[in-house]
Amino acid sequence: MTDVVKSRRADAQRNYDRLVQAARDTFAARGGDASMEEIAKTAGVGIGTLYRHFPKRIDVVQAVYKEDVDELVRTAEVLVTAADSWAALEKWLDAYVAYLETKLAMITELRVAFEKNPDLKLEIKARVEDATAMVLGRAQAEGKARKDVDANDVMQLIGGMCMGVGATPIQNKKLLPVILAGLRAE
Amino acid sequence: MTDVVKSRRADAQRNYDRLVQAARDTFAARGGDASMEEIAKTAGVGIGTLYRHFPKRIDVVQAVYKEDVDELVRTAEVLVTAADSWAALEKWLDAYVAYLETKLAMITELRVAFEKNPDLKLEIKARVEDATAMVLGRAQAEGKARKDVDANDVMQLIGGMCMGVGATPIQNKKLLPVILAGLRAE
Repeated sequence: MTDVVKSRRADAQRNYDRLVQAARDTFAARGGDASMEEIAKTAGVGIGTLYRHFPKRIDVVQAVYKEDVDELVRTAEVLVTAADSWAALEKWLDAYVAYLETKLAMITELRVAFEKNPDLKLEIKARVEDATAMVLGRAQAEGKARKDVDANDVMQLIGGMCMGVGATPIQNKKLLPVILAGLRAE
Repeated sequence: MTDVVKSRRADAQRNYDRLVQAARDTFAARGGDASMEEIAKTAGVGIGTLYRHFPKRIDVVQAVYKEDVDELVRTAEVLVTAADSWAALEKWLDAYVAYLETKLAMITELRVAFEKNPDLKLEIKARVEDATAMVLGRAQAEGKARKDVDANDVMQLIGGMCMGVGATPIQNKKLLPVILAGLRAE
């Protein structure tokens, strides 16, 4: 690959990342009302540029979501090398809550995406569950977390709290320490 | 009131209770598929008797739900006089989980009822929250439960767990002790 080609690819990647970040910010601020026009405006590009990358609104939603899942999984991979396995589990659940809060902001769009592609939902659930199992398993092996729960159990508790009717980021922040206290080995 | 009138009223109440219990059992077993015919059959009465008490299917749903809420609130009133305030909280949350599991079995019907009568949902939420506050408050006052949560917080944790996607009674039974451990004062 020549330096020119490399540089062009890097540019394209930067543009793509900028659009996805703008879409994420717009969904976080406006939820299901976020329009393609607003996303383009937030990214500082023309609407044509946005449509060239993402022909349909659902393509933007999927791109944001895919990046969020990738980032979440990368977080687990870093945390699993941390010195303190309990602090790693705390940080992991913090990251998982933040991820669910973003997901909730675009839940209507995601339901459409999942309906069109049911495997996507299962695939992502499996990836997040594997990541949770990795971080939880280490805290359990070191005797810090109770051993009678698995990754799916932890996700049910956190997911229920964040995605339930009436959930708010403020209440999530207050209740995550309660769940963590419950997960601590006695 | 004469004895004959009293006896007739008692008969009518017994019939009503029997119909409501039959409806509860049928919803628990068959969920949203439970038909008026099945409910009448379970109660051992003709379909005409059922329709005389409950002209529409939604009337049965509301009757079952109202009885469940009444019973739940009565449970709190008894538990608040129990000697051990922590054991009372454990029993209260057990009862709340069982109530939510019944609610989940008829959730589609309840959504219709709540849409027609939005105040009903708020009124019931307030009653259950008051009952929770009563039992939780005593455990907090005696230093058994952590003081930085309120009834709404506890309901969000339990409700999220029971009503979330993929929730099962088996997993609820496994996870309630985790939430209780999290609620215990340190």
